Amino acid sequence: MSGDTKDKGINRRKLLGTTAAVGVAGAAMGAGVSQLVVPAEAQTRQQPGQQARPGQQSYEVKPGELDEYYTFFSSGQSGEIRIYGLPSMRELIRVPVFNRDSATGWGQTNESLKVLTEGLTEDSKEYLRRIGKVTYDSGDLHHPHLSFTDGTYDGRYLFANDKLNTRVCRIRLDVMRCDKIIQLPNQHTVHGLRVQKYPRTGYVFCNGEDRVPVPNDGRDLDKPENYRSIFTAVDGDTMKVAWQIIVDGNLDNVDADYQGKYAFATCYNSEGGVTLADMMAAEQDWVVIFNLKRIEEAVKRGDYKEIGGVPVLEGGKGSPFTRYVPVPNSPHGINTAPDGIHVVANGKLSPTATVFDVRKFDDLFEDKIQPRETVVAEPELGLGPLHTAFDNKGNAYTTLFIDSQVCKWNIEAAKRAFRGEKANYLIQKLDVHYQPGHNHTSMGQTKEADGKWLISLNKFSKDRFLNVGPLKPENDQLIDISGDRMRLVHDGPSYAEPHDATIVHRSKINPVHRFSRDDPFFADAVRQAQADGVDLTADSKVVRDGEKVRVYMTSMAPQFGLEEFRVRQGEEVTVYVTNIDDVEDLTHGFAIINYGISMEVPPQATASVTFRAERPGVYWYFCTWFCHAMHMEMKGRMLVEAQST
Amino acid sequence: MSGDTKDKGINRRKLLGTTAAVGVAGAAMGAGVSQLVVPAEAQTRQQPGQQARPGQQSYEVKPGELDEYYTFFSSGQSGEIRIYGLPSMRELIRVPVFNRDSATGWGQTNESLKVLTEGLTEDSKEYLRRIGKVTYDSGDLHHPHLSFTDGTYDGRYLFANDKLNTRVCRIRLDVMRCDKIIQLPNQHTVHGLRVQKYPRTGYVFCNGEDRVPVPNDGRDLDKPENYRSIFTAVDGDTMKVAWQIIVDGNLDNVDADYQGKYAFATCYNSEGGVTLADMMAAEQDWVVIFNLKRIEEAVKRGDYKEIGGVPVLEGGKGSPFTRYVPVPNSPHGINTAPDGIHVVANGKLSPTATVFDVRKFDDLFEDKIQPRETVVAEPELGLGPLHTAFDNKGNAYTTLFIDSQVCKWNIEAAKRAFRGEKANYLIQKLDVHYQPGHNHTSMGQTKEADGKWLISLNKFSKDRFLNVGPLKPENDQLIDISGDRMRLVHDGPSYAEPHDATIVHRSKINPVHRFSRDDPFFADAVRQAQADGVDLTADSKVVRDGEKVRVYMTSMAPQFGLEEFRVRQGEEVTVYVTNIDDVEDLTHGFAIINYGISMEVPPQATASVTFRAERPGVYWYFCTWFCHAMHMEMKGRMLVEAQST
Repeated sequence: MSGDTKDKGINRRKLLGTTAAVGVAGAAMGAGVSQLVVPAEAQTRQQPGQQARPGQQSYEVKPGELDEYYTFFSSGQSGEIRIYGLPSMRELIRVPVFNRDSATGWGQTNESLKVLTEGLTEDSKEYLRRIGKVTYDSGDLHHPHLSFTDGTYDGRYLFANDKLNTRVCRIRLDVMRCDKIIQLPNQHTVHGLRVQKYPRTGYVFCNGEDRVPVPNDGRDLDKPENYRSIFTAVDGDTMKVAWQIIVDGNLDNVDADYQGKYAFATCYNSEGGVTLADMMAAEQDWVVIFNLKRIEEAVKRGDYKEIGGVPVLEGGKGSPFTRYVPVPNSPHGINTAPDGIHVVANGKLSPTATVFDVRKFDDLFEDKIQPRETVVAEPELGLGPLHTAFDNKGNAYTTLFIDSQVCKWNIEAAKRAFRGEKANYLIQKLDVHYQPGHNHTSMGQTKEADGKWLISLNKFSKDRFLNVGPLKPENDQLIDISGDRMRLVHDGPSYAEPHDATIVHRSKINPVHRFSRDDPFFADAVRQAQADGVDLTADSKVVRDGEKVRVYMTSMAPQFGLEEFRVRQGEEVTVYVTNIDDVEDLTHGFAIINYGISMEVPPQATASVTFRAERPGVYWYFCTWFCHAMHMEMKGRMLVEAQST
Repeated sequence: MSGDTKDKGINRRKLLGTTAAVGVAGAAMGAGVSQLVVPAEAQTRQQPGQQARPGQQSYEVKPGELDEYYTFFSSGQSGEIRIYGLPSMRELIRVPVFNRDSATGWGQTNESLKVLTEGLTEDSKEYLRRIGKVTYDSGDLHHPHLSFTDGTYDGRYLFANDKLNTRVCRIRLDVMRCDKIIQLPNQHTVHGLRVQKYPRTGYVFCNGEDRVPVPNDGRDLDKPENYRSIFTAVDGDTMKVAWQIIVDGNLDNVDADYQGKYAFATCYNSEGGVTLADMMAAEQDWVVIFNLKRIEEAVKRGDYKEIGGVPVLEGGKGSPFTRYVPVPNSPHGINTAPDGIHVVANGKLSPTATVFDVRKFDDLFEDKIQPRETVVAEPELGLGPLHTAFDNKGNAYTTLFIDSQVCKWNIEAAKRAFRGEKANYLIQKLDVHYQPGHNHTSMGQTKEADGKWLISLNKFSKDRFLNVGPLKPENDQLIDISGDRMRLVHDGPSYAEPHDATIVHRSKINPVHRFSRDDPFFADAVRQAQADGVDLTADSKVVRDGEKVRVYMTSMAPQFGLEEFRVRQGEEVTVYVTNIDDVEDLTHGFAIINYGISMEVPPQATASVTFRAERPGVYWYFCTWFCHAMHMEMKGRMLVEAQST
């Protein structure tokens, strides 16, 4: 049975084989094919109690009304997290992470620099020191996923990866700030990232995509056969590496089950190639399944090598920790259904998706069944299946990159077809604009999937928006899936790149309006002030400490605690600003003209910045966040005495 | 008459006087007062031929439809330009300017670094060298304004200011990239910025806000009486300083007439104070008017001092180049009406706006009339008037910061009231949410104002959106002004800070889809390649030049021209990537893992980045812009030989 399906895959794959490198370029750019409708034999009934008429939801959120969902978008190479409201698809806030942010001073304040630097590997610290930097200025943030407790979001954290510099970040959802960044040793890039769903997060699973020598110190440059790729589990509570495991092939995407027993990743380049032609040579790659309990036990009993300061296990083919299940060439996304049973790996270069039943994984690891016996369906969906999302009615929604469509299909029907029964699993194909990558349904990555909305994150927008020059926006399209048929309701342009997203009901998220004075984010500033005998919320004064000058000031609209301070040219100056306004939304900023210093100070928080006063003269500082009718007058003078005087 | 009006202003001003520093904080944060409606006695009739029913316009732009207007938003302390579609209020693209941008490599590529560095003052270059940097990483972009020809937009350029580091930028509207940045010598910050409207731009007028010693080299730190503020005219074609003129008081906002004769700026702090209390002491400040012809003639005949390499004139009170017109305390915005006649200065700490008739300025400079005789109206509008926008029917729309309202009023009626006639100039007050700063009407800053849309850029959003933690978005609200009454149709959250905006009909803007190979933006790369005998669009090769290595490669989905290149640890490497795909929207990126290198390469463009290969090992580079079904496989290896080998 699975043999038949595989053969079908291979036939279709010829179209997408080695010649695809040339041919697909044209196809990918062509207009989407016209909408294909397949009678739905497996549509299930509406849930009772839904608010809007099924299939007739509006994306409009009228002035003063609130969105029903938060959507956490990654931004790809922009390096930040973006929080949108859904269904309005309005960007509510940006959270700087791997990028530098001019507005908040992310990458300039001492508080952000601590987050950006303390988790770097020693190798990276040495590299950065040699080139005269303290941290990276850019990143490539791909997969934002929230912490779980018992199979659904618990509102504590969001985790995401940096494909550029092999980092993982954590965002605190109470204050919507990044509080930890860790760089993974040994591993070369993090691509796929997902979290443990049960009993809680727990682990953050991080796919190492590229293969390099381990350690990567100049050895084996020309011996690709010695290159290794690595899968890492980070402890989400401590943001330390729990363990790493070496695998075969390039890891792509990852997901986890609802029992806390397994994680599983798609792999491409099972060939171990280092050129495009090599990477596409084989007709099959695989999904690798990780047995968490076995790995934990091995780590516990010390059955690992320590490399780069972390425990590393061997997980190649034949290892007790992993199983490799053959799937058609170059699978991409892998997604666990809300039923807790089915896992869908998407074919990319095969027109198929491969459906696993996680209940069979115990037997697989016990060697009671063969790897392909964990496969329960392999429906043919269209060209370039990349990712699959789910509703609460047993349906799946798969993006077709090359066809520029979303395909709605039914899992149970696909299983029947796979068993040889007559069953039409395709329900509807909807054109999207254009070339979709990730897609997401409301709450669809949890056991509380609600089947209301789908977003398709399309890589090209072409002519869908006013022309803004050579660089076009991406297009995040909003699709109503509450009815029998998908209905496109909104085109959402978006700056590079809406790589991935998570749609979370607003009831799950409960941020604060102001910082608590004992927040760890600025604890270093509080400690330093105490050592200097300064009450940050009351005192504004200058403390001299040899060549170092610490300037403490409060901010309360429309005045800083100091209207001037004086330093000598060349001194190292740290300015601590404490926003003592207790009003919701009353953020202050602190910027020094012609010094390039600019930072944000949220209500009840302290922020600090350190610089050398290498420029003599009068330099006005001012509040950058409009705070008051006399905001323009909220300023003061830094007087820098010339070295010669 | 004007005396009466002034007295009224003073009475009201008491409310906002020295005690306001404390009192307004609470008022500013209070809920907006309920909507006030004043019968319109001066409403004019609808223009024929409008598409939508007046007062019934929808902001919805359905999937696949295009917006009618481009809106160019500044981003305040975010340092970038944002281009939105209107009425949909969707962000179409970001244009990095004074910020660093992780996605495009702005601030990292050689092409962007040239823009960011070559216009810096020698002082700044020296300062940056001392602190180990080549440019600033942040900015505070306030006022984006497009180039004019004959009183309306000509689609060539957008200019904007950096309040943080005293810079002015120019964006090319054909490719939507910043191509020039100039830092102004002598001047301390640029705040207000507007352009010459007639015969063309021409001049970019730049307000120096803060007063400092000139030169600002450590002298006169404690002699504020020697501090000076400066007004600069930049030549928009060459992006060089045409002239500077020293003035009295802190310059705030600026605008120009439709005859090419005058520019005019609001001034606060006529007191020359350096503390908040001093700055608010006087009951009047002024509007300063600049006589462009007289200044040009003086420059021509050499009647200036050269300071910091540019001609500087004296324009204080009594100068032939300027006139100072007293207006109530701390005026803020100044806006020229599309009728080419009226100029409105907004009172901020006075509840009034002051209306000038530019036709009287000739007589003022000939000393035939007194300064206040140029004032033709001074309507009382409400608390905290900041900026005024205009429709095509003689109406003005003024933001009231403290009242959290937009006030619609009629200019002719206000003039009649000022002459002592019985005339009700107030038409409607509309609550906005909350604390509006700038506002703008569609095409309202040109002679082609069309009276369709108004946006109110509100500084606080508070509870208008899902809570995203201590830092809230601003709120750009869209208001339909096509009917008799203003109607709020959409709340638009926006990241710090929608400081200012310009709404431009799409017929005025005509960007290209791809770069021309002879584009000056990457001409240095083309020259270097020619010197190396490399055809950028065809060759992929490595050129060694002593300790320098130049790596040339093409990019065409899904392959780079080189699948590997080899360098030695410590070498200075420049990678030039040329995107030879000729397909609309097919952007490539180039990033090197764990090296922090990431840049964008638009269709038919070349981009380059220089770094030191200080880290031995295998480092994969990859394409960051999703370009193809095999985008993930679009990669190669940088092999860095360890120094010891």
